[in-house]
Amino acid sequence: MSTVLVLNGPNLGRLGSREPEKYGSTTHDELVALIAEWGAGLGLETVVRQSDSETDLVHWIHEAADSGFHVILNPAAFTHYSYALRDACALLPDAGVTLVEVHLTNPAAREEFRHVSVISAVASGTIAGFGVDGYRLALEAIAARVG
Amino acid sequence: MSTVLVLNGPNLGRLGSREPEKYGSTTHDELVALIAEWGAGLGLETVVRQSDSETDLVHWIHEAADSGFHVILNPAAFTHYSYALRDACALLPDAGVTLVEVHLTNPAAREEFRHVSVISAVASGTIAGFGVDGYRLALEAIAARVG
Amino acid sequence: MSTVLVLNGPNLGRLGSREPEKYGSTTHDELVALIAEWGAGLGLETVVRQSDSETDLVHWIHEAADSGFHVILNPAAFTHYSYALRDACALLPDAGVTLVEVHLTNPAAREEFRHVSVISAVASGTIAGFGVDGYRLALEAIAARVG
Amino acid sequence: MSTVLVLNGPNLGRLGSREPEKYGSTTHDELVALIAEWGAGLGLETVVRQSDSETDLVHWIHEAADSGFHVILNPAAFTHYSYALRDACALLPDAGVTLVEVHLTNPAAREEFRHVSVISAVASGTIAGFGVDGYRLALEAIAARVG
Amino acid sequence: MSTVLVLNGPNLGRLGSREPEKYGSTTHDELVALIAEWGAGLGLETVVRQSDSETDLVHWIHEAADSGFHVILNPAAFTHYSYALRDACALLPDAGVTLVEVHLTNPAAREEFRHVSVISAVASGTIAGFGVDGYRLALEAIAARVG
Amino acid sequence: MSTVLVLNGPNLGRLGSREPEKYGSTTHDELVALIAEWGAGLGLETVVRQSDSETDLVHWIHEAADSGFHVILNPAAFTHYSYALRDACALLPDAGVTLVEVHLTNPAAREEFRHVSVISAVASGTIAGFGVDGYRLALEAIAARVG
Amino acid sequence: MSTVLVLNGPNLGRLGSREPEKYGSTTHDELVALIAEWGAGLGLETVVRQSDSETDLVHWIHEAADSGFHVILNPAAFTHYSYALRDACALLPDAGVTLVEVHLTNPAAREEFRHVSVISAVASGTIAGFGVDGYRLALEAIAARVG
Amino acid sequence: MSTVLVLNGPNLGRLGSREPEKYGSTTHDELVALIAEWGAGLGLETVVRQSDSETDLVHWIHEAADSGFHVILNPAAFTHYSYALRDACALLPDAGVTLVEVHLTNPAAREEFRHVSVISAVASGTIAGFGVDGYRLALEAIAARVG
Amino acid sequence: MSTVLVLNGPNLGRLGSREPEKYGSTTHDELVALIAEWGAGLGLETVVRQSDSETDLVHWIHEAADSGFHVILNPAAFTHYSYALRDACALLPDAGVTLVEVHLTNPAAREEFRHVSVISAVASGTIAGFGVDGYRLALEAIAARVG
Amino acid sequence: MSTVLVLNGPNLGRLGSREPEKYGSTTHDELVALIAEWGAGLGLETVVRQSDSETDLVHWIHEAADSGFHVILNPAAFTHYSYALRDACALLPDAGVTLVEVHLTNPAAREEFRHVSVISAVASGTIAGFGVDGYRLALEAIAARVG
Amino acid sequence: MSTVLVLNGPNLGRLGSREPEKYGSTTHDELVALIAEWGAGLGLETVVRQSDSETDLVHWIHEAADSGFHVILNPAAFTHYSYALRDACALLPDAGVTLVEVHLTNPAAREEFRHVSVISAVASGTIAGFGVDGYRLALEAIAARVG
Amino acid sequence: MSTVLVLNGPNLGRLGSREPEKYGSTTHDELVALIAEWGAGLGLETVVRQSDSETDLVHWIHEAADSGFHVILNPAAFTHYSYALRDACALLPDAGVTLVEVHLTNPAAREEFRHVSVISAVASGTIAGFGVDGYRLALEAIAARVG
Repeated sequence: MSTVLVLNGPNLGRLGSREPEKYGSTTHDELVALIAEWGAGLGLETVVRQSDSETDLVHWIHEAADSGFHVILNPAAFTHYSYALRDACALLPDAGVTLVEVHLTNPAAREEFRHVSVISAVASGTIAGFGVDGYRLALEAIAARVG
Repeated sequence: MSTVLVLNGPNLGRLGSREPEKYGSTTHDELVALIAEWGAGLGLETVVRQSDSETDLVHWIHEAADSGFHVILNPAAFTHYSYALRDACALLPDAGVTLVEVHLTNPAAREEFRHVSVISAVASGTIAGFGVDGYRLALEAIAARVG
Repeated sequence: MSTVLVLNGPNLGRLGSREPEKYGSTTHDELVALIAEWGAGLGLETVVRQSDSETDLVHWIHEAADSGFHVILNPAAFTHYSYALRDACALLPDAGVTLVEVHLTNPAAREEFRHVSVISAVASGTIAGFGVDGYRLALEAIAARVG
Repeated sequence: MSTVLVLNGPNLGRLGSREPEKYGSTTHDELVALIAEWGAGLGLETVVRQSDSETDLVHWIHEAADSGFHVILNPAAFTHYSYALRDACALLPDAGVTLVEVHLTNPAAREEFRHVSVISAVASGTIAGFGVDGYRLALEAIAARVG
Repeated sequence: MSTVLVLNGPNLGRLGSREPEKYGSTTHDELVALIAEWGAGLGLETVVRQSDSETDLVHWIHEAADSGFHVILNPAAFTHYSYALRDACALLPDAGVTLVEVHLTNPAAREEFRHVSVISAVASGTIAGFGVDGYRLALEAIAARVG
Repeated sequence: MSTVLVLNGPNLGRLGSREPEKYGSTTHDELVALIAEWGAGLGLETVVRQSDSETDLVHWIHEAADSGFHVILNPAAFTHYSYALRDACALLPDAGVTLVEVHLTNPAAREEFRHVSVISAVASGTIAGFGVDGYRLALEAIAARVG
Repeated sequence: MSTVLVLNGPNLGRLGSREPEKYGSTTHDELVALIAEWGAGLGLETVVRQSDSETDLVHWIHEAADSGFHVILNPAAFTHYSYALRDACALLPDAGVTLVEVHLTNPAAREEFRHVSVISAVASGTIAGFGVDGYRLALEAIAARVG
Repeated sequence: MSTVLVLNGPNLGRLGSREPEKYGSTTHDELVALIAEWGAGLGLETVVRQSDSETDLVHWIHEAADSGFHVILNPAAFTHYSYALRDACALLPDAGVTLVEVHLTNPAAREEFRHVSVISAVASGTIAGFGVDGYRLALEAIAARVG
Repeated sequence: MSTVLVLNGPNLGRLGSREPEKYGSTTHDELVALIAEWGAGLGLETVVRQSDSETDLVHWIHEAADSGFHVILNPAAFTHYSYALRDACALLPDAGVTLVEVHLTNPAAREEFRHVSVISAVASGTIAGFGVDGYRLALEAIAARVG
Repeated sequence: MSTVLVLNGPNLGRLGSREPEKYGSTTHDELVALIAEWGAGLGLETVVRQSDSETDLVHWIHEAADSGFHVILNPAAFTHYSYALRDACALLPDAGVTLVEVHLTNPAAREEFRHVSVISAVASGTIAGFGVDGYRLALEAIAARVG
Repeated sequence: MSTVLVLNGPNLGRLGSREPEKYGSTTHDELVALIAEWGAGLGLETVVRQSDSETDLVHWIHEAADSGFHVILNPAAFTHYSYALRDACALLPDAGVTLVEVHLTNPAAREEFRHVSVISAVASGTIAGFGVDGYRLALEAIAARVG
Repeated sequence: MSTVLVLNGPNLGRLGSREPEKYGSTTHDELVALIAEWGAGLGLETVVRQSDSETDLVHWIHEAADSGFHVILNPAAFTHYSYALRDACALLPDAGVTLVEVHLTNPAAREEFRHVSVISAVASGTIAGFGVDGYRLALEAIAARVG
């Protein structure tokens, strides 16, 4: 059974209370439950983690590379400047790991600094603008590759 | 039963034979069949069209706005300059239509001119980098909104 | 009696229903009627055409060059990238034709990509921001030159 | 009876003698007479003023805001850098005043620094490239709004 | 009694010894004492923290959002790139919290990369160039809003 | 007793009536009274002047340099382009004069052209975003230096 | 016998009458005759087509890819923005087809927007500035490769 | 006998006391005397004026155009943004007037914003970096043309 | 009999051994022989020279201007920065000399710094991407003009 | 005996397994041993640390400043955006500490974002492109200064 | 008696015949004679040299530094890119040598690449736009410094 | 025994006398001696050459490619624009030659134009900021590769 690490970046722990008109009213705990349910339905083991620390995210990507876990990454604000995270993600293809970048909102319709992702160029694919449902789609995408 | 217009832009009629190492070996005809099958599984009526003409795409978006069809749009090269297509797409939210932008490859990992989409800002969401499976994910995303 | 070709670009066929708070509630058919009436009052024969096709617009500009018709052009989204249309318009001065560029809204108060017109440099003049009344002003401008 | 302030910016007092092949041979005094005549024909009271002083123009815009006078403004060189004039013009919408920006020539066909207007974004509309006839068109535009 | 979190970013723990001709000779401990004194004089409870960790600062901003503490933030070098901190700060207005950005020196008179703040657009206001006295002014500003 | 010249730039004479939701409802006359009161409380003589003329502001800065008056300057729109005012302000350090730049609103949260100040690099410090209370803070900052 | 498709883009149908001091006085019909003659002399079958439609040009490039025809392409204004045409041209190397980009004039000596070609990077070679003789040189270049 | 208007822009009235290590210790009054002496030696009538007002400088340029006076202009800070002054200067060639732009210091060795002159393109020539001696050289240059 | 100077810039003496997969395996000596043969076939006298010195190339262009020799110039790396060579080439039109710029490879498909040519704007025409055959085409182009 | 802190930034703990064709096959543990050996041979005490945390690196730089340890810093991805690290490094010159920036690969030959280092301007010197041997060279450089 | 080296850069040997409407009809030999005459009148020994070689110019600047000769330099096209020449010129201030940069024409009124000088920042002063008379003015400027 | 060509670019012949506070007091002759000594100690034959001529440097790089000499190159000012030198250096990898780029000072801490090297991308590695000791480090680096 394949394992998928779902990694959420800074400020995503506040989902549900943070500008709900933009990010939706689902809380992070509810998101964790949804992902478990979706993963189970697809025959995927899922582990969800959230951190406001760039270092934590880099370490978890290292863990994925070492363990062969696939990764769904919502880098949040790190999307726009964390080359450390990018360099970590660049380790994944050699480890045979699929990396899906997920954004709750559509960055292209927001402030200009959100139009650039330093992560996308090293991701397998990107899914943006579908709220929490984006995580389900990302799981589907990984299941399709794995299956 | 909801209807989804799947619109493919210029050069996509050559899928399968066009740089298969980049775009995959599925032909456009096979893609049409896959989409029909995926749509049926999700309870969606699907109509797939391909054109190398900006005008055709604009008209089909108009049709979607008039008929309330949801849209999956792979604008191909028009992604990067067709403001006419963008203006057409901007009609869709008022018509209650969901627009999902799909790319077979990951534009962020290709030439610099492909890093900019003039369509994204008026799309509901974007899915890139999953090959033809991206259409299935887009259908899932629409089904989730419609359901 | 002088003839004026009034040419409307992509998505303008949807006037009245397209974001009426921005573009006004006059439909394209009503605009045709208004232009006929205004033209008649000024002693000008008017022909109004709309197309979502860059090629149609280029051909109509060629027709104007051949027939010596004056032109009122609302290039809509083509304003920002159609160098093919620009090159066609550049034929008009040699044919003794006046070209007036019209915009319903004020592009300078909208998205940044609308601040640049590739057409203006080859137009006789520009009128922007007056809604459908801009066409009347353009007819007046041509009548003044012709008269 | 509505009043329209027609405000001409720096160096426009030299109309007629200043590069007549570019700006035409009508003098500023003749322009004043033409505007009076055109205004009268449209049932508009007109007041024409010219100044080479940014401060004068700012004050006259203040006066328009206080008195509810509509404004036709040819900002001349101030078009390209006077944010003070722009901020003054931004007062007009709250005062229910229509502001029409007029240029004798077509800035888009001249030096690059003339392609940018810091005024346009706060104007109701813009008319450029018709020589002194542009003032007549601007009066027409205001008359249409007022009538 | 209102509480104000005073948060100092990277390298500010070295105040007094770090380029004293630029940042002044007051140490961070002395600054803590001054802020306590100034806060008391204004009827404000103050808590001063310093960290070289982006994550700590993000968490403290979360704490302020949860507790309704007002915030004085000297983001130091994070000013120029920490969109994670910016996104955290963007949570504060919904929580009814005032955020004052403080800089000891005048960034506009230093290296070009210091001319851009990614924080300012989400702050209530900014105070720069007054050395440690900037913190007193920030407390005054908050007291005025609270009082 | 130290004297502080408080200089307000273009369009600030219209405070109170100008977009009050942005600039507040205090009129310029009320601001003058507030500054007098705040100054007196701090043992500072204050003189408030407003002008829409760049030349007036330059002359008043000259006067401050000659008389050793400290300066609080709200350059308004001149902030973004008046190098003449900047060059005048650059005279102040040699004259031992403190210059505080004040903005009612937070320019970083407004149009892009407002993000650049040509004055800041020659100011002692900057205070932005606190409405008319910014003048009080500026007086406090000067009192702290003088006292 | 090898076949060469000679494809001329928008506004080239007006050769001879369009700014003859810039583009020469040879008409498009005369060009067709010249190409036939030059081709015959080199043992090449030639087919000349002209269109103002981006879609036509894309389709003809597809035809060349399918039939193994070599291509001489004068993209005219499409040179500067038609990524759809570029993507079509990118199909040619896999089909063993030589693509020669031809321009009548020297774009580097004209307006700045003409300095950039989005086609060149996918062409085998470029010939610019020799008027209609450029087509002869392009035929020679293809004959040399074919021979 | 030819007349030369020597026009000095903003803050130049403070010559001698303004950063003398940069601008020299000659006062503006002493400069006036030197120019008179130099002019007399060259058989030129000279009139020296200084103003901190853009409007004054524009008017004096108008006066030069009307009277056929040659002009030596030190635009000071207006060098970098006053398109109004530029447009006035552009009147001079038609009036047969020589315009020499003078700078005391070498703008290329100072802040970046001083590297651009909006005046130079309409001046006959430029002399920079020679302190007050630059005015003598400018008089020589004019005398050589006049003689 | 017309004479053509064929001038090859820096590093072209190493043709054949220098990255042969990019520049081909023809040596410079072989190129010289080919050019002689092609020239003879076209009734042109040819002189081929190669230098790594900008000065040599400038002098040879001067010689062409003095002698009325036509020029085929492969400026190699000088293409991208030698304004001295450009200024020399700008002498040729007055001398009735045709200048053809030749590149072995297609600069548009290589590093970004190779996309700009400072020479093209002063050349009669450009031929790029045909390897050594480009010299033959250039000779043909000159023969056509001369004949 | 002088002490040298050798600090390695994010993802460098994975040396040996991370893209060995780019970064070499030496592991971080082997690098530690090599540095100890090299240092001993030069009479330098060496301490090697690696962290994926910006905060750790900042603290270690603080420690170097306090202890007078020289520093060899491979900032890895932080090179391109960590102004916090830069500000810490800027403390070192006052502490009499030499800072050598080391990169295993040659950033100038990689992606464009790697061409900019925000650290270099505050380093004593930089060594790039020599793989792990770069650390030995850096130790040599420090030994030469210390000896 | 002071010596002045007058150094003319590439293509200036062709003065008189090179675009005389732009550069004047004086030949380089005539210029040499004029400079000798002007120098003698000012009590200056003058040596005039011209070269199309960057190396020659660098060496002559070295000679000036060694001999204490003042320099008048017309760098011609090298103005825009020769940092080697700039670095040589940067040696002159330490040698007590005055460097005057001279241009025959007004670069600000020509192509954009001519608007930037890499030499100006290290010159004592610049004189542009006065044709060959600019050399006389430069001699005057040096004489004034020397005298 | 391996041979190393040490090539020094323009103005480096003046080492010792040229801004010694920046470049150190070692003369070029002393540097030659040091390099001989360092090379001997490492078992390397060294040849040091200096030239102010781009052509010389290109030729010496060619010689290195032909002879298999390793190269230490201090391109001095050519660093920033000599693409001819870059193209020559690009020949070296095919010849199995190591190229080390050396700078005496730290270009990143100097003027902005020195931040870009057109050479680095084709060098094996770069050493900057260690004064003449940088040559010793470069020799060490080559010895390590050779040994």
